[in-house]
Amino acid sequence: MMAESIRASDKMWGGGFAEATAASVEAFSASIQYDARLYRHDIMGSRAHARMLARQELITEEERDAILQGLTEIEAEIDRGEFVFKPELEDVHMNIEKALTDRIGLAGAKLHTARSRNDQVNLDFRLYLRDEADSLDGLLAETQKAFARQARKYLGAVMPGYTHLQRAQPVLLTHHLLAYVEMFQRDRDRLAGCRQRINVMPLGAAAMAGTGLPIDRHSVAEELGFVAITANSMDTTGDRDFALEMLFCLSLIQVHLSRLAEERVLWSTKEFDFVRIGDRYTTGSSIMPQKKNPDIPELIRGKTGRVAGALMALLMTVKGLPLTYNRDLQEDKEQVFDALDTVKASLAITAELLGHAEFKTERLRAATAGGFMTATDLADYLVRRNMPFRQAHGVVGRIVAFCQERSCELIDLTLAELRQFSGLIDADVFAVLSVDGSVSSRLSAGGTGRARVEEALAQVERLLGMAS
Amino acid sequence: MMAESIRASDKMWGGGFAEATAASVEAFSASIQYDARLYRHDIMGSRAHARMLARQELITEEERDAILQGLTEIEAEIDRGEFVFKPELEDVHMNIEKALTDRIGLAGAKLHTARSRNDQVNLDFRLYLRDEADSLDGLLAETQKAFARQARKYLGAVMPGYTHLQRAQPVLLTHHLLAYVEMFQRDRDRLAGCRQRINVMPLGAAAMAGTGLPIDRHSVAEELGFVAITANSMDTTGDRDFALEMLFCLSLIQVHLSRLAEERVLWSTKEFDFVRIGDRYTTGSSIMPQKKNPDIPELIRGKTGRVAGALMALLMTVKGLPLTYNRDLQEDKEQVFDALDTVKASLAITAELLGHAEFKTERLRAATAGGFMTATDLADYLVRRNMPFRQAHGVVGRIVAFCQERSCELIDLTLAELRQFSGLIDADVFAVLSVDGSVSSRLSAGGTGRARVEEALAQVERLLGMAS
Amino acid sequence: MMAESIRASDKMWGGGFAEATAASVEAFSASIQYDARLYRHDIMGSRAHARMLARQELITEEERDAILQGLTEIEAEIDRGEFVFKPELEDVHMNIEKALTDRIGLAGAKLHTARSRNDQVNLDFRLYLRDEADSLDGLLAETQKAFARQARKYLGAVMPGYTHLQRAQPVLLTHHLLAYVEMFQRDRDRLAGCRQRINVMPLGAAAMAGTGLPIDRHSVAEELGFVAITANSMDTTGDRDFALEMLFCLSLIQVHLSRLAEERVLWSTKEFDFVRIGDRYTTGSSIMPQKKNPDIPELIRGKTGRVAGALMALLMTVKGLPLTYNRDLQEDKEQVFDALDTVKASLAITAELLGHAEFKTERLRAATAGGFMTATDLADYLVRRNMPFRQAHGVVGRIVAFCQERSCELIDLTLAELRQFSGLIDADVFAVLSVDGSVSSRLSAGGTGRARVEEALAQVERLLGMAS
Amino acid sequence: MMAESIRASDKMWGGGFAEATAASVEAFSASIQYDARLYRHDIMGSRAHARMLARQELITEEERDAILQGLTEIEAEIDRGEFVFKPELEDVHMNIEKALTDRIGLAGAKLHTARSRNDQVNLDFRLYLRDEADSLDGLLAETQKAFARQARKYLGAVMPGYTHLQRAQPVLLTHHLLAYVEMFQRDRDRLAGCRQRINVMPLGAAAMAGTGLPIDRHSVAEELGFVAITANSMDTTGDRDFALEMLFCLSLIQVHLSRLAEERVLWSTKEFDFVRIGDRYTTGSSIMPQKKNPDIPELIRGKTGRVAGALMALLMTVKGLPLTYNRDLQEDKEQVFDALDTVKASLAITAELLGHAEFKTERLRAATAGGFMTATDLADYLVRRNMPFRQAHGVVGRIVAFCQERSCELIDLTLAELRQFSGLIDADVFAVLSVDGSVSSRLSAGGTGRARVEEALAQVERLLGMAS
Repeated sequence: MMAESIRASDKMWGGGFAEATAASVEAFSASIQYDARLYRHDIMGSRAHARMLARQELITEEERDAILQGLTEIEAEIDRGEFVFKPELEDVHMNIEKALTDRIGLAGAKLHTARSRNDQVNLDFRLYLRDEADSLDGLLAETQKAFARQARKYLGAVMPGYTHLQRAQPVLLTHHLLAYVEMFQRDRDRLAGCRQRINVMPLGAAAMAGTGLPIDRHSVAEELGFVAITANSMDTTGDRDFALEMLFCLSLIQVHLSRLAEERVLWSTKEFDFVRIGDRYTTGSSIMPQKKNPDIPELIRGKTGRVAGALMALLMTVKGLPLTYNRDLQEDKEQVFDALDTVKASLAITAELLGHAEFKTERLRAATAGGFMTATDLADYLVRRNMPFRQAHGVVGRIVAFCQERSCELIDLTLAELRQFSGLIDADVFAVLSVDGSVSSRLSAGGTGRARVEEALAQVERLLGMAS
Repeated sequence: MMAESIRASDKMWGGGFAEATAASVEAFSASIQYDARLYRHDIMGSRAHARMLARQELITEEERDAILQGLTEIEAEIDRGEFVFKPELEDVHMNIEKALTDRIGLAGAKLHTARSRNDQVNLDFRLYLRDEADSLDGLLAETQKAFARQARKYLGAVMPGYTHLQRAQPVLLTHHLLAYVEMFQRDRDRLAGCRQRINVMPLGAAAMAGTGLPIDRHSVAEELGFVAITANSMDTTGDRDFALEMLFCLSLIQVHLSRLAEERVLWSTKEFDFVRIGDRYTTGSSIMPQKKNPDIPELIRGKTGRVAGALMALLMTVKGLPLTYNRDLQEDKEQVFDALDTVKASLAITAELLGHAEFKTERLRAATAGGFMTATDLADYLVRRNMPFRQAHGVVGRIVAFCQERSCELIDLTLAELRQFSGLIDADVFAVLSVDGSVSSRLSAGGTGRARVEEALAQVERLLGMAS
Repeated sequence: MMAESIRASDKMWGGGFAEATAASVEAFSASIQYDARLYRHDIMGSRAHARMLARQELITEEERDAILQGLTEIEAEIDRGEFVFKPELEDVHMNIEKALTDRIGLAGAKLHTARSRNDQVNLDFRLYLRDEADSLDGLLAETQKAFARQARKYLGAVMPGYTHLQRAQPVLLTHHLLAYVEMFQRDRDRLAGCRQRINVMPLGAAAMAGTGLPIDRHSVAEELGFVAITANSMDTTGDRDFALEMLFCLSLIQVHLSRLAEERVLWSTKEFDFVRIGDRYTTGSSIMPQKKNPDIPELIRGKTGRVAGALMALLMTVKGLPLTYNRDLQEDKEQVFDALDTVKASLAITAELLGHAEFKTERLRAATAGGFMTATDLADYLVRRNMPFRQAHGVVGRIVAFCQERSCELIDLTLAELRQFSGLIDADVFAVLSVDGSVSSRLSAGGTGRARVEEALAQVERLLGMAS
Repeated sequence: MMAESIRASDKMWGGGFAEATAASVEAFSASIQYDARLYRHDIMGSRAHARMLARQELITEEERDAILQGLTEIEAEIDRGEFVFKPELEDVHMNIEKALTDRIGLAGAKLHTARSRNDQVNLDFRLYLRDEADSLDGLLAETQKAFARQARKYLGAVMPGYTHLQRAQPVLLTHHLLAYVEMFQRDRDRLAGCRQRINVMPLGAAAMAGTGLPIDRHSVAEELGFVAITANSMDTTGDRDFALEMLFCLSLIQVHLSRLAEERVLWSTKEFDFVRIGDRYTTGSSIMPQKKNPDIPELIRGKTGRVAGALMALLMTVKGLPLTYNRDLQEDKEQVFDALDTVKASLAITAELLGHAEFKTERLRAATAGGFMTATDLADYLVRRNMPFRQAHGVVGRIVAFCQERSCELIDLTLAELRQFSGLIDADVFAVLSVDGSVSSRLSAGGTGRARVEEALAQVERLLGMAS
C-alpha cells in the first residue's frame, strides 16, 4: 500500500531531520487515503489565503496569480482522477502544496506563510461540514416531503395507534406519518444550530499561538462566507466540538430512521401485513425461494450502531487531551465521513422506499376492530357525564374484563349490559364506541382528529414548499 | 426493598385486572426510587392542568381549588421529608395523585382527566430539564468567571504553548486560560439550543392520540412558560430527543473538563510543576506519607466515561423503538439524572479548585527557555525578508539541528553562526529570538500577543458582567 | 449529604497535611456511599492479611486475635445496620480500619502494615466479583432450566421459524426455546474464563512497588481460595481488566435477554398473539382501561443500553491512563455494581415470567399455514431427484409466484399444476409440503427435526441436572 | 460505484421476483466491497462442503472434482487480482458461486445444496476470525518479546514509580516494562477463550432450521479443524457472540496500548525527557521547524475510541433482534475488520518503536532524587521497630512536612533532626532512605526488588521462548 519512503528532507517539514521516516510510520500515520476527500475545500481555503496574503503584501500579485492558477489546474486534475496522491506526503494539504510548488516554483513555497496544518485542516473540515450540513438538510427536507406525500395520499385511512406495541387507540395513518416529519424537523433545527457553530473561521490560529505576520483574518472569513472568526488560537487548533456535534446530529437522525425501520420490518410481517414493498425494494433468500425480505429497513436499523459508535469513538478520542493540537485528533475524519455517508444513504433510500410503499388500508382498518381501542373514549364519555376520570377508568376496566370473558368487543355489548356497569350510560354511547367516532372526536391540538390532522398536513406542506 | 403488594384494583389502572401484580414485577418496574426527584415539576404541571380543566369547565372551581390546596399540602409534606413514597404505586405521578385523592376525595380523581402518564412524564421531564439547563448555564458562567479571574490575575505571565505535548511556541498563561472560556461558551450556546427544543409543551398528547375532551393546550403552555406546544401527539409521547440532546451537551462539557483535568494532573507533577494546589484540595495516600495527589482532576477526568456512557446508553435504548410510548423509555431518567449530577458537581469543584490554584510563574517562564520555541519566529523573520516560507522552514530546521549538536538554544548562537545559514539574517534577529519578543509579536486576531489577549480578556469580562 | 469536615490530621493519611480537606472535596471524592457494599469482602481480606502478618511475626498473636475479634464485631454491626459509615473517612477501607482502631487501639493501627488501599481495593473487588460470578452463573443456570421446562412442556408444538422476521420454515417451539439455552451456555463459558482471570490474588502489591516487609502472599492467596498471585506489582494496582471483562460478559447477557424481550413484546401483540402473560406479570395504563402491557420485557430490552453504557464508560475511563493507580479508577465500582444489579434482576424476572408464560399452540400452528413455509422442502425434494439446487430454487420461486397470483399456498396446488413447473414432481410431493412433514424431516445435527430436538432437550436436561 | 442493475432473475435467489432490484437497493445492501476479504475462507468452506456432499452422495465424485477444480481456479484468479467482484451479486458468496457455475455449469449449481448464506457467512467469518486470533496472538507475543528485550537491556536502571502521576516509590525500569508483558499475557489468555468459542462449526444450520438432506456436519468440522459443531440451528444463524467477544478482546488490547502510548507521549516531553525516539519514528511540523512529535503513540491512543466504538456499534446493532438471521447482522464485518486492522497495525508499530526507543537512564535516576520517594521505606523502618504502621505513617508525614519547609529531601536530614520525630530512629536509617536501598529491599513476590525482577524477567523469557 505504501510507496517507498522519500527522504525526510524532501518532506515539507524535514529540515531538522537527519534520517528518513520509517516506512511503517508513514503507513501508520498517513491520512491521505481518506482526507483526499477534502481537496476542494482545501483548495478553496488556499485560494482565500493567497488572496489575503497578497492584499497584505506578504506575497506579490504575481505570486498570488501563479498560486491561483496552479491551484485551479491541480483541482481540475484531481476532478479528472489524474492526480496521484502520495502517502509519503502524508495528507491532502501537503500533497497539494507539493504539487503546487513543483508546478509554479517559489511562489508555491510561499503559500504556507502564516498558516499551519493545525489551522488549515480545521478550516478544511469546517468548510466541508458546512456543505454537508446543507446537503443533509436538503435530504431531510426531501424525506419529509416523501412522508408528506404519503400523508396526503392516505388521508382518511385509519389504523391502530400503539403504545407498548399494544393496540391503544385508533388514529389516522396520516397522523402517524406526520410524526416522523416532526422528528426530522427537530433534526433540521438541531443541525442548523450545529451549522452555526461550524461556521466560524479558524485560519490564522496558525500552529496555536497566532502569527506575527500582518494577516487579515476577517477578510478571509468574509470571502469564505463565515459569520465570524474564532476567538482564541489555542482553543481553535484543538477544537473538534463541531465534529462531535455533527456526529450527535447524525446519530439522532439515524435513531429516528431506526424507529421507522423497525416499523417497516414489523409492518412487512405476515402478522401485521400493513404495507407492501415492491419486489424492486426487497431481496430474496439464497435458500428459501418464497422469501421477500425487508433488507433495507433492517440494514438502516442495523447501521444505527455504526453512527452512534462513531460518536462514541470520537468522544473517547478527545477525552483527556491537553490543549491545542494532538495527533489523536486525526481520528476525527474517518468517523465523521463514515457517519455522514451512512446517514445520507439511509435518508435517501428511506425516502425512495417510502415513495414506493403501498399501505394496505383495509388491513389497517381491520386491525382497529379488535383490542377495545375505544375504551378511553368510553371513559371520557363518562367523564363528560361528570364521573371522575379515575372512577370512569375503573368502570371501563370492568366492562373490558366482562367483554374478554365473552370474547367480544365493547361495541358488541347491549345498552342494558353496559348500564349494569354505570347508569350514566345512554344510547348515545355507541357513537363514541366506533372507530370513526373515536378518531374524529380527538380534536385537541396536535391530536389525531381529522380536522387537526388536515391542518397539520397543510402546515407541513406549506413549510416544505409543497403544493397541497 | 419492596413493600408488600397491593391489590391491582387499588392501583390507578387496576380496573380490568383480576390478579394482583407480582411483587417481583413491582420491584423491577417501579421508578419511584428515582423519579420522586420530579415531584415539584409534577405538581407544577398538575396545577396548570387543573386550572385549565376548570377554565374549560371540565371540573368546577371548587374542585380546582381543592386540587390546588391538596397539591400545595402534598408538596410541603414532601419538602419536609415526611411524605412516604410507595413503590407499589410505581412512580411519582401515581404516588401524588393517590395522595391527593386520599386527601380530597372525588375531586382528586378528576385530576387525570384528559391526560395520561405518557404526556405527563414528558411534561415533568421537560420542566425539570428546563430548570437544569438554566442551572447548568449558571454553573458554566461561574466556571468561566473563575477562569477570567485567574486570567486577569496572571496577565503577563508567559508559558510554553504545546502541540503534541511538545513545547511549541511561547504564549501567555492568560491566553491559555481563556481557551477554556471559549469552550464553555460553545457549551452554553449549544445548551441554549437544547433548551429551546426542551421548551415545547407536550401535555394534551394524552396516551398518544390527543383527547376528545375540550382542553386548551395553549393556555397551559403559557402558564408554564413554554414557547410552543408539540405538534403531533404520537411523536410527543415517544419523543426523548431533548433528553438525548441534553446528554450530548453534558458529555461535551465533561470532555472539556477532562481536558483541563488532564492538564491539572500534568501540571501537578514534579516534572512539570506548573501549579500548586493547596492541601485542602488534594488528598493523601494510605501508605505513602509524602503523597499529595490531584484526586479531584483525576476523578473529573475519570467521570467522562460515565457521562458519555449515559449518552450511549440512551441512544441504544431508543434505537429501534416503534412509535409512541414504549416502557423502554423509562430508562431515560436515571441516565440523565446521573449525568447532570456528575457534570454539575464537576463544574462546581473545577471552579472552586481553579480559584485556589496558584500558578508558578517562574517555572512557567523557565520552561520557555528550552525547546527552540522561537524557531517559527525566526522563520517568519526570514519570510519578512522575502524568503519563501517553505524555504525559511528548511533553513531554520537546519539551524535547530546545528544547535542540538551543540546543546544550545537559538538565542545562544552568534550572528556569524546564524549567517552561515542565511545571509538575510541581521543583528535585529535577536529581538525575535527572545520569548518576550515572540509573544508580543503575535498580534493576529485571536493570537497570543499581549494586546490581543488583553482585548479578549476585557471582552470576556464584559460578556460575563465582571468588573475588569 | 456531607457531614462536617474532620481535620486532615484525623484522616489515616493526614500526617503531612497542614490544612483540613475542603468539604466539597470530601463530598466529590468519597466512595463510601457505594463501596460500603464491599464490607464483607474487605473484612475477609483483612482477616487473611492479619493472620499472615502474625505468621510472619509482623504482629503478635495477641494483636492478631484482637484484630480478628474486632473485625468480627464490626462485621456484625454492619450486618445489623448499626454501623455508621462516615464520608469524611472516604471509603469502606478507612471506615473499617478507623472503627477497628477506635475499638482495639494500637493493634488496629498495625493492620495496614505492608498493604495499601491500592492493592486492598483490588483484592476486595476481586473477592466480590468472584462471588458475583458464581451468583450470575447460578442465575444463568436457573434461567436455562426455566427454558428447558417450557421446552419439555411444549414438546411437539410447531411454529413458524423466522428470518428477517419473515416466516421462513416451520420449526418446533422447543427448538426455538433451546436456542436461548445455547446463548446462556456461551455466557456461562465466557463467565468461567472471566472468573479465572478474577481469581488471582493482588494483595502485597502494596502502593505499586511491593514491600520490603517479609510478607507471604502465597499463604494469603491460599486462605482466600485464589489459584495464583499477581506477578507484577505495578501492573496489579492499575489493573481493572477483570472489571471490564465482567462488564462485557454482563453486556452480552443483557443483549441476549433483549433479543428474548423483543420476541416477547412481539408475541404479546394482538397481531402475533403467540403468548399469554398473566395479569400478575403485566401492568396497566393510567388512561386506557383495556391495556395490559408487556412492561417487563420492554424494561429488560431498554436496560441493555444501561449495561453496555457501563462497559463503554469504563473503557473510556481507563483509556490513556499511565501505569499503576490513578484515581480515575474509582469510577469502576458504580458501573460494575449497577450492571450486575441490572443483569441479575433481569435474569431472575425473565425466568419467573417464562415460568408463567402460556404459549398459544394453536395460534403458533395456524401461523405456519401461510407464507409458503415449505418452499425449501420442495426445492430439496427436487434436489433429491437430482435437480441442481440452484435450478430447484428457481423452479420453486416460480411456483410460489404462481401461488401468489392465485392467493393460495403450495399445498393447495394440484399435482398437475405442480408438474407444469417440473416433471420431476410426483404424488409423493405432498408429504414434503405439509408442515409436519417438513419439521420431522429436518434431521441434520442441530436441526429442528423432532428426534434431534428431543436429543438436544435431553442433553440440556442432563447438563442442568434436571430429571427429564 | 455500482454497475448497472442485472435482472433479479439472474440473481441466485431471483426465481420468485417479477422485477429487477432497484440500483439504489443494490448499492445500499451490497457487502462485496468489504466481504471480498473473506474469499479464501469462503472457498475453504465450500471445498469441505463439496467433499461432504460427495461422501453423502448428494453430488457425484465428478461433480465434486469439478467444483474443487473450479474453486481452485477462482481462488487463484482472486489471488492474482484478476477476479471482478460484482456488486449486483451482493456478496462474496454469490460472486464466487456464480463464477463457479459460469465456469463448470450444473455441478456449480449443486454447491449450495443443503446450505444457506445464513450458515455459510457464519462459517466464513469464524474461519477468518480463527486465523486472525492466531495472528493476533503472534503479534501480542512479538510485542511481549520487544518489551522483554528492553527489560533485559535496561536491567538495573532505576526510575520513579508513579501513582496519580505523582512520584511515589523508586522502581526498576525493567519492572515497569514487565507490567505491560502481564497485560498482554492476559490479552492472550482472553483471546484463547474467545478462539475456543469461535472454533465451533456452524455449517448445516442452513437457513435456520437445519436441512432434511442427509448431510454429515461432523466430518465437515473435522476437515476444517473445528472442535465441535453448533448445537442449535436457530441460535447458530443469529449468533454473532464470537464477533462481539473478538471486538471486546481488541478493545482491551487497544486500551492497554493507549496506556503505553500515554506514557510515551509523557516521557517524550521536555519536562519528563525519559526516552529518545529516533527521527525515523517521529514526524515534524509544517510550521515549527524544531518540532519532533510523538505522532505514533498519539495516533495509537487516539485509535482506542475507534476500536471501542466498533464494539459499541455491534452491541447496539444486535440489541433487540429477534431470533435467527436479520439483515442488521451484515453490519458485523466492517466493524470487526476495521478493529482488527487497527489493533494489528498498532501492535506491530508499538513493538517496532519500542525496539528503537532509547531510555535515558540518567534522567530516570535523577528523577528519583526528589519527591520523598523513600518515605514509605522510612515508615516500614519504624514498623520493623514495632511502631504501629498507622502511627509510623503519621510520623513520616510530619518529617516530610518538615523537609518541605526546608526545601530538602529526607536523606538530607541529620540523625538528630530525624530523632526529634521518633526516638526509634537510629543511624542505620540512612540505608533505607537511599533509592537503591529502597528498590533492593522490595523483595515481596511480584515486587520491584532486583532479585524478584530478575526472576520475573527470566520467567517471561522462558514463556516466550527467548534465550535469556
